[in-house]
Amino acid sequence: MAPPAGRALAERVFERLREATGDGVGITRESYGAGESLALDIVEAEARAGGLGTHRDAGANLVVTLPGSDPSLPVIACGSHLDSVPQGGNFDGAAGVVAGLMALSRFRAEGFAPRRGIALYALRGEESAWFGRAYMGSAALFGRLSAEDLATPHVVTGRPLADCMREAGVDVGRVARGERLLDPASLAAWLEIHIEQGPVLVARNLPVAIVTGIRGNIRHRAIECLGEAGHSGTIPRWLRHDAVFATAELITRLDRHWRTLLERGRDLVVTSGIIGTDPAEHALARIPGRLRFSMEARSQSIETLEAFYDLFLSECAGIGEERGVEFRLDRRLDSAPAQMDEGWIERLRAGLRAMGLPDEPIPSGAGHDAAVFAQAGIPSAMIFVRNQHGSHNPAEAMEMEDFLIGAELLERSLREAAA
Amino acid sequence: MAPPAGRALAERVFERLREATGDGVGITRESYGAGESLALDIVEAEARAGGLGTHRDAGANLVVTLPGSDPSLPVIACGSHLDSVPQGGNFDGAAGVVAGLMALSRFRAEGFAPRRGIALYALRGEESAWFGRAYMGSAALFGRLSAEDLATPHVVTGRPLADCMREAGVDVGRVARGERLLDPASLAAWLEIHIEQGPVLVARNLPVAIVTGIRGNIRHRAIECLGEAGHSGTIPRWLRHDAVFATAELITRLDRHWRTLLERGRDLVVTSGIIGTDPAEHALARIPGRLRFSMEARSQSIETLEAFYDLFLSECAGIGEERGVEFRLDRRLDSAPAQMDEGWIERLRAGLRAMGLPDEPIPSGAGHDAAVFAQAGIPSAMIFVRNQHGSHNPAEAMEMEDFLIGAELLERSLREAAA
Repeated sequence: MAPPAGRALAERVFERLREATGDGVGITRESYGAGESLALDIVEAEARAGGLGTHRDAGANLVVTLPGSDPSLPVIACGSHLDSVPQGGNFDGAAGVVAGLMALSRFRAEGFAPRRGIALYALRGEESAWFGRAYMGSAALFGRLSAEDLATPHVVTGRPLADCMREAGVDVGRVARGERLLDPASLAAWLEIHIEQGPVLVARNLPVAIVTGIRGNIRHRAIECLGEAGHSGTIPRWLRHDAVFATAELITRLDRHWRTLLERGRDLVVTSGIIGTDPAEHALARIPGRLRFSMEARSQSIETLEAFYDLFLSECAGIGEERGVEFRLDRRLDSAPAQMDEGWIERLRAGLRAMGLPDEPIPSGAGHDAAVFAQAGIPSAMIFVRNQHGSHNPAEAMEMEDFLIGAELLERSLREAAA
Repeated sequence: MAPPAGRALAERVFERLREATGDGVGITRESYGAGESLALDIVEAEARAGGLGTHRDAGANLVVTLPGSDPSLPVIACGSHLDSVPQGGNFDGAAGVVAGLMALSRFRAEGFAPRRGIALYALRGEESAWFGRAYMGSAALFGRLSAEDLATPHVVTGRPLADCMREAGVDVGRVARGERLLDPASLAAWLEIHIEQGPVLVARNLPVAIVTGIRGNIRHRAIECLGEAGHSGTIPRWLRHDAVFATAELITRLDRHWRTLLERGRDLVVTSGIIGTDPAEHALARIPGRLRFSMEARSQSIETLEAFYDLFLSECAGIGEERGVEFRLDRRLDSAPAQMDEGWIERLRAGLRAMGLPDEPIPSGAGHDAAVFAQAGIPSAMIFVRNQHGSHNPAEAMEMEDFLIGAELLERSLREAAA
């Protein structure tokens, strides 16, 4: 178990983060925005107070370092992200950064001198809530942000991602040229602790679990359904081109396809998290001529994603034809599913057994930066910590005892791998 | 046909209204707001310039008067409303006011001295777009606005209707006490010209038509669907309480009921003009825990309205049960269907025949102030003018030639009835 100093450090950092970025309902740490930057500053101040080295990389992420005695060896990296959805929870992302900080602080306090360097990354821009694109911080590190990504407008302000990144201190020129800001060969591994954002660990009564793989997704941020506005009392049914009725039918049909795919044993979740008529023109007594909505499908299988997406396109075309509306699609966004490193999965499971805990592994329904590190060729692994009430909402609730188990497993594993 | 002076007057007033209340897309004349007041001022200035008497009644409506030689006789009233939906068209409402102004101005210019007085009402607050409640101006005249109506918040600003009415000059104290601001016995008739807001006259190639009756409606301004927010990637289908999927299914089922009722020969239209997740909490990757939407059913038959409403309630309960969501209903708003006066329908049809025009009557799909006058016991009638592209949108297009036919019919009828 982590010594009292580690627990005190964790509680202090979580509390400071909550105080600094609370929004009255939950916490809000906008990607490449003020709340996120505040969070990085808080962690950096704690790291320095603990005698650790820190710097900001070209992606404006915070890097906390414990140098190794053999600088020629690839470094063991850990960490997670510090941004959040609007009105989100305090542990989503931050738990992984705080656990890394605990480990490095303890190593420093003990005078542990590893052979390999150890680096903790407090990443920016993981949440898709702000620009539609997820994993922006880690994608930028590996030259994986496209010109289209960089031009993506902020959901609220409409400012392009590139502008917000520049303001946060990112070297946008290098990102735009697709340069790698971090050489994958310089990292021996990526270890990420994250709260589980689903109900599995609670249901199975497991404090922590090792992740086998990460779901990918296909997304549209803002599909427009274009029909024809008109007075609600006077246009008979057969002359209507109602964007709301058409979209309701589309969603209902997709819901049916989803159920069918599940019945066939496929892995899939479908969400339309954002939907709305235009406040500048909608009215109680006006046939809605326009509706915007988002669409997201997630699966561990690329085949299932593509099969569902084909159904989606064909329903858009069919309903468009039947109802005289047009579904105008914005850019399709993709995140490929990712597999975690077999060797690391085994090592972490062995660590759990050594701690006298069950070692049942689980897949990740949510996406994580670890997927991007894995896709860059870095052996990657994740430790999930049990969490009540899901995530992306202010009610998420992680027990400190569960978190300390995860933090201890991370510390043991870092110590072993770096020694 | 109206003499050149009448046409010039109409064109001038329409143009001034368009200039004063244009919003860049269409025109916006908010009920009990600035654009509506501007429109009343423009009409009043024209009326005075033409030598007519004007005053504002206790409901802050504009009344233009031509006194009769026998003040003991009930007055013939005509008019319509001057407010509009957001980004609406310039003729919806205003056409009836301008036609009345043309008639009274011509009578005044000719020195026509009727036995009965003639009054033109430029009413406020007909559109439901701003407070959910329709016919506020005419309802206030007959003591038909309830305390709940007066407390209804403005759709954008949230200010109660009572405050906005007071600011526009309404004697809200009398309205709140349910007093009649206008004695129905003081009016011999209510004649209203209005553009047709549907496609029937265009389809049948009729420049104008006489209205037989007016559809009533049942409305909810803002129904809330309450589910449970959560991370979109991690909650499996059977644990989801998704407000968007539930509402999409509700709308799709109502659409099916609507089709079935039409197949049984019932008169019905159903609209959900406003729908949206909450921008303060929605996100691409978050299961929507909340959705607000409006619902409206219109029919010429109270029985059909109530039958559909029962289906609506039972679907809300059923889907709520199946999906673990709650449909929380706000106040139900009702407008009863209304019949136009048989005698006046015949008189107006005879007028059309005398002008060498077809006299085919049609029902009104949209609601109109004439319904409120009819329900107050005043013999009421309406003349529809052909209009392209429907209404409640900036593309509405009334031909001046069609309008002048309607205006001439109104003038002949007023002259005959008042002489």
